[in-house]
Amino acid sequence: MGVNYFNRNERDTKFVLFEHLNMANLLSYDRYKDFSQEDFEMIIQEALKVAKEVLGPTMQDGDREGCGYDEGKVTVPESFHPCWKVMAENGWISMSGNPERGGQGLPASLSGLVGEFFVAANTAFMTYPGLTSSNADVIEHYGTDLDREMFVEKLNTGVFAGTMCLTEPDAGSDVGWLRTKAVPDPEAGDPRIYKIEGNKRFITCGDHNLTENIIHLVLARIEGGPKGTKGISLFIVPKIWVNPDGSLGEPNDVFCTGIEHKMGIHGSTTASLSFGESGKCRGILLGEPHSGMANMFHMMNEARMACGVQSLGLAAAAYDSALQYARERVQGPPFTDRRADRVRIIEHEDVRRMLMNLKAGTEGMRAMIGKLFFLIDVALSDPDAAKKKQAANQVELLTPLVKAYCSDFGYNLTRDAMQVLGGVGYCAEFPVEQYARDIKIVSIWEGTNYIQSLDLIGRKLPMEGGAVFQSWIQNIFDFTKAHKEDPDFAPDLKLLFKAAQATGDYTMRFMQYFQGGKAQLIPLAATRFLECFSEVLMAHLMLEQGLIAREKLQGVEGNSADGYFYRGKIETVKFFCRNILPNVFARYTSLQQEDTSAVDIPEEGF
Amino acid sequence: MGVNYFNRNERDTKFVLFEHLNMANLLSYDRYKDFSQEDFEMIIQEALKVAKEVLGPTMQDGDREGCGYDEGKVTVPESFHPCWKVMAENGWISMSGNPERGGQGLPASLSGLVGEFFVAANTAFMTYPGLTSSNADVIEHYGTDLDREMFVEKLNTGVFAGTMCLTEPDAGSDVGWLRTKAVPDPEAGDPRIYKIEGNKRFITCGDHNLTENIIHLVLARIEGGPKGTKGISLFIVPKIWVNPDGSLGEPNDVFCTGIEHKMGIHGSTTASLSFGESGKCRGILLGEPHSGMANMFHMMNEARMACGVQSLGLAAAAYDSALQYARERVQGPPFTDRRADRVRIIEHEDVRRMLMNLKAGTEGMRAMIGKLFFLIDVALSDPDAAKKKQAANQVELLTPLVKAYCSDFGYNLTRDAMQVLGGVGYCAEFPVEQYARDIKIVSIWEGTNYIQSLDLIGRKLPMEGGAVFQSWIQNIFDFTKAHKEDPDFAPDLKLLFKAAQATGDYTMRFMQYFQGGKAQLIPLAATRFLECFSEVLMAHLMLEQGLIAREKLQGVEGNSADGYFYRGKIETVKFFCRNILPNVFARYTSLQQEDTSAVDIPEEGF
Repeated sequence: MGVNYFNRNERDTKFVLFEHLNMANLLSYDRYKDFSQEDFEMIIQEALKVAKEVLGPTMQDGDREGCGYDEGKVTVPESFHPCWKVMAENGWISMSGNPERGGQGLPASLSGLVGEFFVAANTAFMTYPGLTSSNADVIEHYGTDLDREMFVEKLNTGVFAGTMCLTEPDAGSDVGWLRTKAVPDPEAGDPRIYKIEGNKRFITCGDHNLTENIIHLVLARIEGGPKGTKGISLFIVPKIWVNPDGSLGEPNDVFCTGIEHKMGIHGSTTASLSFGESGKCRGILLGEPHSGMANMFHMMNEARMACGVQSLGLAAAAYDSALQYARERVQGPPFTDRRADRVRIIEHEDVRRMLMNLKAGTEGMRAMIGKLFFLIDVALSDPDAAKKKQAANQVELLTPLVKAYCSDFGYNLTRDAMQVLGGVGYCAEFPVEQYARDIKIVSIWEGTNYIQSLDLIGRKLPMEGGAVFQSWIQNIFDFTKAHKEDPDFAPDLKLLFKAAQATGDYTMRFMQYFQGGKAQLIPLAATRFLECFSEVLMAHLMLEQGLIAREKLQGVEGNSADGYFYRGKIETVKFFCRNILPNVFARYTSLQQEDTSAVDIPEEGF
Repeated sequence: MGVNYFNRNERDTKFVLFEHLNMANLLSYDRYKDFSQEDFEMIIQEALKVAKEVLGPTMQDGDREGCGYDEGKVTVPESFHPCWKVMAENGWISMSGNPERGGQGLPASLSGLVGEFFVAANTAFMTYPGLTSSNADVIEHYGTDLDREMFVEKLNTGVFAGTMCLTEPDAGSDVGWLRTKAVPDPEAGDPRIYKIEGNKRFITCGDHNLTENIIHLVLARIEGGPKGTKGISLFIVPKIWVNPDGSLGEPNDVFCTGIEHKMGIHGSTTASLSFGESGKCRGILLGEPHSGMANMFHMMNEARMACGVQSLGLAAAAYDSALQYARERVQGPPFTDRRADRVRIIEHEDVRRMLMNLKAGTEGMRAMIGKLFFLIDVALSDPDAAKKKQAANQVELLTPLVKAYCSDFGYNLTRDAMQVLGGVGYCAEFPVEQYARDIKIVSIWEGTNYIQSLDLIGRKLPMEGGAVFQSWIQNIFDFTKAHKEDPDFAPDLKLLFKAAQATGDYTMRFMQYFQGGKAQLIPLAATRFLECFSEVLMAHLMLEQGLIAREKLQGVEGNSADGYFYRGKIETVKFFCRNILPNVFARYTSLQQEDTSAVDIPEEGF
């Protein structure tokens, strides 16, 4: 039986939601008029309880037991079944889904940051509810009334589970090359029903025994459709056919041909699926023909945000484990007092540096992710159309950052946490090595991090003629100007100003490269630009938090729980700006070299 | 049955040894007068063959099968037995050991870089021969004639295996707190024989069934000895007692109480050992009483260099896997030609960037490690006493860099390799996720990387009043001055000059901090100083290589195998200086902030 190491607290989450983002403002929106801040606080407490008591105890077992495969049938770790039951029965699967169809109708800000607790407790398990609710959202958004009736509530309440099926053995990052095809099925008596035939690979939660049915959202090309991504359509393909009255029909000729053995998330099935091997697989066209990529991106964008939450949850859990260990483990005297008795390692300067890196890193990511989800709520519900549009644009801008930056940085942070634990950090008795293994997938799936950086440069920077990005950077310049004489944070604001300048210069150079025949420099710098922008954005948010914390500190005892929190926040903001943000300058120095060695080298020279 | 992915070639190894370091010069030393460069080249070929045909096929199996434990007895993966036999019978265990006692008497430069192939093929397995030969070296160095006769040849030829036993459950980084004790054993009739009692933990290769006996080198305190590290002695503690005539006696009351389940190196036993639970464990004092720490450091320093080789081997294997995959996998068009047909991913700019990072990173590490081993050979055998001493000092200076920098950087590089492979990189079918899991231990064992940085700052920088470090930096300044107008590398030399200045400034500041009551800033910057120094050192060596490659390129066809190699090297040097070296400037910006937030934060604020 594995140990339950989940021990997170909610203080910084509440700070982000209620003190930084002022989530209470969302209560003025019509959509949330029946909620109160107390409701939100209670939901946070309940979620923590579920994470601690239901999901946490199953994390190590899930890893050790893994998924089973036998003649097309997949079993999840035994302990995942009661988890699913609790999540389904208590409305945790679809916290933000339509309340008329089994969702809880909560703001994305809340469900997003509460999700952090769940993934921290058991990431592998959370892939099942995560894909299920996103799947329901897509059908809610693009389906007919009948589609919604047949599938959405059952997904939101965990009667069914969901997947997204894009990747094929020969089409990964270039999904436009997929071979799965759809042919109208005249026998079906419904023009929206097609015969589906093809093979999908790397399908997360692609088969399992948690639910009576699995609803696959499958990308396929209607025979004769245009080549590339413009000819792809989206289909609802149930594992077991669902009749219009909601009853289950025959198995739908979907066969799981195998599952992957992976570095981590052992409890999450990664399946190869064969659709229509016996010519009997049917799918329901979702949305218009050939609009599949655009519609699937609804789900993909949610999944990309979820990647940020996964990374944050695992990194924060790793920080928490390292912190607990450092508070107890006794080894040697500190550097500055070599003749002293041995102390707990939290008193060692270098251990504190690593803990601060974890603390500042996770709080920076939480600030960025909280901001993104808050913007989603504004984009969805603000009565002011201009504000709505602006928020929607900003959501677009931030999504690739949250996906890519958090996944790479989160992996690095789990490394630091292992280092704090030393030898035991490498052992399976403690959870950190599992966090490191589990988190690694996030930089790869839902579009590799390079694809995120291309999305940022190719699609997001040009939005509104570049104005969305420009106004973001200008906002930072305004902020640094307004506070540049700050008694505590002046050096940090100076660093932020310079880092924002460097980040802005990237975009100027990209434009020049594009126009000046040096386009190859853009992809070489793309991932690093994304990282610079992310760090600038996080530093800005962290400094906003630092100013708030300083003000609040005036109103409390310094040695009260809140006092310690605000004092800790102020130091953490400084640490972020003075130790993490400067990475921008290394990348910027690289950029200035305009180095093309990676493309100049002959292939035989590798 | 696992797949054998080992596919390394020897070209860069030969370049380092024969073209950069001019290893042929070692042939003038008396010690190596019976060798020729052809011998060395043949040994490299043979080692590659053993790595490919013997070790490589067992890597994945070793990981999957792992070590077994049953009532005190440990079994290694079945396939490791024939590996041991081949290594033992063909002299690979002790390539540089004394030829009069089973060693091959080869230069450290050769055995070090050939070791890279072995760890690339199967790191977990290589822990057994690695510790065995280091163990033999310590006995060779500090033992009596009888000790040497009884143990050294049997270790060097793999009849016995060896370990080093430092860590205890309550004493890891602060080994001075160990509790294992030694009491004179009057019954033994030999004043060098003591009774040993205590518990050791995290003992690599601490028990196994590869050999008929295991020779433990155990740190223990002779009863009544001084406290701390100054009262620690070193003992030869065989698992089965060895009689003076070499025959085996009774089991020596050494019991394996359990083994660890770890993130990686599953085939390498990590044992908890109980010595003398029944009061019958005997050990032979090795060297003088209370000199144990100093003597063990002989072994520890070898182990730290081996850490660099492990990291290099695994990172280079990861590069090789990524390169093979990138040459075959077809996905999408490149960025600069979006309308083109899909191409192999090695034609994608960002994939090339990641491959170059792997290539430049591993070649930089290989250059640094080759240099270190070459200096060992000079320090051991040069007829000029001053040169000998200078080389010995430089070995001291470089050892912590090779241990710490390579282990952290190597881990990061395996991350890049996984990213090149995408989804399959996360799967156990391909070897890269195992490389990432196997390499992670290296930053922790043999003294954590923070301990390496303290060793660098506290012991190595002050050597000869700082002159060893200063002359190294001055050497770099002379180099950059001499070549600053270079037609190809001028920008790189400029970056190196600035980076060396920054690194030098670290040491000036450390002195000021120490004297000016700001000593806490030293441990906060220590690991980053080590990283800066390592990158400066590698960039210098890489630029030396670049100049050599350019000259050699004049003498060959550009499209010949050598031509491609030299052209590749030139681009790789540029990539290193323009993309990896600039990390110095991020850390240096941090240093300039003199940030103390990590020590200022109240513990309750974490």
